[in-house]
Amino acid sequence: MYEGPVQDVIDELARLPGIGPKSAQRLAFHLLKVEKTDLERFASALLALESVGFCERCHNVAEGSLCRICSNPKRDPSVVCVVEEPRDVIAVERTHEFAGLYHVLGGALSPLDGITPERLRVRELIRRVTATGPDGRPEVREVILCTNPTVDGEATAAYLLRELQSLGRDDLSVSRIASGLPVGGDLEYADEVTLGRALAGRHSL
Amino acid sequence: MYEGPVQDVIDELARLPGIGPKSAQRLAFHLLKVEKTDLERFASALLALESVGFCERCHNVAEGSLCRICSNPKRDPSVVCVVEEPRDVIAVERTHEFAGLYHVLGGALSPLDGITPERLRVRELIRRVTATGPDGRPEVREVILCTNPTVDGEATAAYLLRELQSLGRDDLSVSRIASGLPVGGDLEYADEVTLGRALAGRHSL
Repeated sequence: MYEGPVQDVIDELARLPGIGPKSAQRLAFHLLKVEKTDLERFASALLALESVGFCERCHNVAEGSLCRICSNPKRDPSVVCVVEEPRDVIAVERTHEFAGLYHVLGGALSPLDGITPERLRVRELIRRVTATGPDGRPEVREVILCTNPTVDGEATAAYLLRELQSLGRDDLSVSRIASGLPVGGDLEYADEVTLGRALAGRHSL
Repeated sequence: MYEGPVQDVIDELARLPGIGPKSAQRLAFHLLKVEKTDLERFASALLALESVGFCERCHNVAEGSLCRICSNPKRDPSVVCVVEEPRDVIAVERTHEFAGLYHVLGGALSPLDGITPERLRVRELIRRVTATGPDGRPEVREVILCTNPTVDGEATAAYLLRELQSLGRDDLSVSRIASGLPVGGDLEYADEVTLGRALAGRHSL
């Protein structure tokens, strides 16, 4: 319908998830009005994405073979935080509460969608946990299961717990992040499952 | 927060209207997974936008000095349909009911937002309407005011009607698109203003 280049940009934008043809059209008309340098910067940012791959160790996004976190010598390699997606790494990093390494599964178990343990990076996690360090002993001593507190995430955490326990390592501690009321939340508006978890997870003062 | 190239794409996407940082992050992670050729096609589509300008005559988007409609000899130059934006041209074109030319105002009058007649292409419209053709007579004989049936669009149409009438051309017909119930609509759910317009604009059978 539109002049060639305008229609091309509309088509490309409409290919993005969650952007329909109407939004794509609106965005394309916005891009028609921006400076040429802005278009060039946008285009080169897209091309630079080609150089981004995944970390060999933790499968987070990485420019080289290791991500910034895995290649940081100040991080503690004995603690591994298992998350579903690279964006969850950023969420945990923002807390500034975690100094260990990550393991990105690439999703959560969801048999109905065909996401079985083989589709996630479970084998790679087991390999990391069983690998021995320079002193001949297993390097990883703590695994924090940090998948989402959703049905799929909980199932994934339960599955990983079983797998890790079946390794028979007494010196390995496996934990799960706490569920409860969000800070600033209100008892009145909390759903009963969350409030139940908050009660079950109470700690003495 | 993210590796350089990922953050760059997030920043570029978040600069688009209606796309917040969370959506930009989601889209960037989608783009991380697509084929390299798809990224390259997207980037070159953006760069090709640089070649798109605006039609000298009607101010629609155009690759050359005239848009596809203005450069089509089969279109009737004596009828001009005045619209607010280039996307409205497409909307009218989709009806296949109009064979004349367009005039894109670039918006609608909105004094509160500082959109005065000087900010729109009103002067250019008047110039087109008063311009004489090869036979020495004014070429434009009909103007259809096709601005949106919103407060701003109606005010713009009223303003343009006054301006066009003040030209004192008896042979110029000026019309306004009809308001009424949309086809497939339901009287029960129509707002009273629309239904009132539909009644006022009734035609005998």
